[in-house]
Amino acid sequence: MQTKAYAAATAKAPLGPITVDRREPGPNDVVIDVLYCGVCHSDLHTARGEWPGILYPCVPGHEIIGRVTSVGNDVKNFAEGDMAGVGCMVDSCRTCSPCEHDLEQFCAGPHGFTGTYNGAAKGGLPNTFGGYSKQIVVDQHFVLNVRHSDDQLAATAPLLCAGITTWSPLKHWNVGPGKKVGIVGIGGLGHMGVKLAHALGAHVVAFTTSESKRQAALDLGANEVVVSKNADEMAAHADSFAFILNTVAASHDLDPFTNLLKHDGTLTLVGVPEHPHPSPSVAPLIFGRRAIAGSLIGGIAETQEMLDFCAERGITSDVEMIAMKDIDHAYDRMLKSDVKYRFVIDMATFN
Amino acid sequence: MQTKAYAAATAKAPLGPITVDRREPGPNDVVIDVLYCGVCHSDLHTARGEWPGILYPCVPGHEIIGRVTSVGNDVKNFAEGDMAGVGCMVDSCRTCSPCEHDLEQFCAGPHGFTGTYNGAAKGGLPNTFGGYSKQIVVDQHFVLNVRHSDDQLAATAPLLCAGITTWSPLKHWNVGPGKKVGIVGIGGLGHMGVKLAHALGAHVVAFTTSESKRQAALDLGANEVVVSKNADEMAAHADSFAFILNTVAASHDLDPFTNLLKHDGTLTLVGVPEHPHPSPSVAPLIFGRRAIAGSLIGGIAETQEMLDFCAERGITSDVEMIAMKDIDHAYDRMLKSDVKYRFVIDMATFN
Repeated sequence: MQTKAYAAATAKAPLGPITVDRREPGPNDVVIDVLYCGVCHSDLHTARGEWPGILYPCVPGHEIIGRVTSVGNDVKNFAEGDMAGVGCMVDSCRTCSPCEHDLEQFCAGPHGFTGTYNGAAKGGLPNTFGGYSKQIVVDQHFVLNVRHSDDQLAATAPLLCAGITTWSPLKHWNVGPGKKVGIVGIGGLGHMGVKLAHALGAHVVAFTTSESKRQAALDLGANEVVVSKNADEMAAHADSFAFILNTVAASHDLDPFTNLLKHDGTLTLVGVPEHPHPSPSVAPLIFGRRAIAGSLIGGIAETQEMLDFCAERGITSDVEMIAMKDIDHAYDRMLKSDVKYRFVIDMATFN
Repeated sequence: MQTKAYAAATAKAPLGPITVDRREPGPNDVVIDVLYCGVCHSDLHTARGEWPGILYPCVPGHEIIGRVTSVGNDVKNFAEGDMAGVGCMVDSCRTCSPCEHDLEQFCAGPHGFTGTYNGAAKGGLPNTFGGYSKQIVVDQHFVLNVRHSDDQLAATAPLLCAGITTWSPLKHWNVGPGKKVGIVGIGGLGHMGVKLAHALGAHVVAFTTSESKRQAALDLGANEVVVSKNADEMAAHADSFAFILNTVAASHDLDPFTNLLKHDGTLTLVGVPEHPHPSPSVAPLIFGRRAIAGSLIGGIAETQEMLDFCAERGITSDVEMIAMKDIDHAYDRMLKSDVKYRFVIDMATFN
C-alpha cells in the first residue's frame, strides 16, 4: 500500500513530494485519510537534521486529523467515516509498567515508544513516516476519537502535540480551580497552556519576554501577564506559585522562575534547549524544597481525555493554514516566531 | 546572663574563647547546659566567611545536646535535668502557612526562620550564637526531647542537622520497605542517609567515588555499593530508582544520577555547591518526567519524630570526639574529608 507524502530527502534539502509504503492494514489497524497536520518545531528539528539519529527520507508530522477509511476486524472504537486523530506515538511495548499505567510516553520496553515519524532508531523497524502524507495506517490503540465539529477540525490538529504536552503536566501537577499557575512563553505550546489552564479553572499568570504579547495573552485567557524582563513585575509574584509550566525551549536563566515558586513548588520544562540553560542555582531548590522537572507529551488515555474536554468546550488551537508546498517557508517563519500560534497544513492542497 | 563561647572574631581569625550575652530566660524558654556539639560543614563556611552576610563575632554550632538547667513557667515538655537537643533553628514566625504545617524551615514570615547561629541577617535581631558555648537559651518550641541513653548522647548530636537533613527527604519521598533508594556520597550527611534509609526498611544503594569506601558503606547498612566512576556499575542501575538523595555539595555532573531514575523519579540535593554544578541536561528530565529537587533540614515535629525513631533503634552518628580548642584543626581535616563521619565537641573540654 502506497501513499503520497512530503519528505526531506536529506538534512539540507527542502521538502518535496515522494511516494512511501504504508503497511498492509492488519486486524487492529485503522486506515486514515489525513485532512490536516499541524506543524511542530520538532518537525523542523527532525527534517533539517538538527537532532541526532535522523533517518532519511524524513516525513514529519505528528498532529494529525483525518477521516477513517477502513478498519481491521478487531478494531472497536472506530468505523469508516469517523474523524480520528494521531499524535506523537504510533506504538509501544504495551506490557511494561508505564504502558500498563497509560504512560506509553515513558514505555520502558526495549525500544521505548515508536514515534509517529523517525520512529526507527529506537524500534528496529523501517523508518516511520508521519502526517505530511495523504494516508496513514495506525494501530487502534494509538488512534484518538475526535469529537470537535467539522469547522474546528483544522484547529484541533495541534491538540495532538501542543495540547497534550501542556495538558499532561497541568493535570499531573493538579492545576485547577482556586490554584494559581504560571505559563512561561506564549508560543505554540504556551498559548495552549494558557487556554487549557484557564479552562481548568485556574488563575493563570502568563510570562512573556515581550511587552507586545501582553494583550494577546490576556485574550487567550490569562488573568495576569508578567513581562519577565521587568524585575518589579517578577518580584510581585515571589514565592507564590505551586506550579509553573515553562514552555520556552531556548536557553535561558531558570532561577527567576524557580524563585517564584512557593515551598514544594515545581517548575516543569517541556522543551529541550539546543544549548544548555545556565546551571540552575541549587539554593532556591533547597531553601523551599522546590523542584525542576520535565514532562513529555502524555499517554493515550490522557490524550483522549484532553480531546474530549476540548471538544465539549470548543477549545482549539489558534492556527494559520498553509499549503503543503509552503512548508519550508513556514519553517523559516517559525524560526522567527512569526506564527500565531501554530501552522496547520491543509492536506487538500497536496494531490 | 552571660556564657563562655568559642568564636571566630573575623573570617581570617582562628576561633577562640569569648564571653557572650544570652537573653534573660522568659516564660517559654529552656536554659540548657551544652554537653556536646556536632561540627557541621556549615560551621566552617560561616566561621570562615565563605558565605555572604556573616556577622562577627561568630559562634557556630547547631547540633547541640545538653542538659536542661531551668525552664520558664509556660514550658510544658521539659524539666530541669532533662536531656535536650537544639538543631539549626531557634525561632520562626509561627503564624505563616509553612509554620502552621510544621515546616518551620520554610517559614514565610518576613525574616524566615532564625538560625541557631548567624541568625541576625534575616531576623533583625542581634546576632544569634550557636552551640560552641557552655549555655544556650531557646524557646521550647525549638527544643527537642532526647531519649537516647547517656552513653549515646555525644553521637546523638549530629542527628540534629545531619540526621534530620537526610531523614526529612527520605520521609517526604516515601522511602520505606520494598523501595530502592540511592544515597550519593558517604560523608557526614551520607552516612546518616544510609543508616536511616536502611532502618526505614529500604533497599539502599550507596554511591561513592571512592573504591576504598565500599566496605564502609556496606558496614553502615547499604545493600549495594556503586563506585560512581565505574560506568558499567552505574549502567546496571539505569531507570531503576524512584528516589536518590544526593548529599555531595561539591560541584559535579548530576546527569549520571538523573539517568538512574525511573519515570517520575526525583533526585534531591541537600548541599549547596560553592561552584555551580554543570547544567543538568533537560532531556532526561523530560523523557521520564523526572525531577531535580532540593531539601532543607526538616521541621521541628519531624526532627522529634526522627530522634525518637533513632532512640528506639539505638541509631546514632559515627563520630570522632574533639576538644573545643582543636576546632580549627578539625575544620582543616573536614576540608580533606578526613573524618568518619562527624566531629563532635566535648564541651567538658572547655572551661
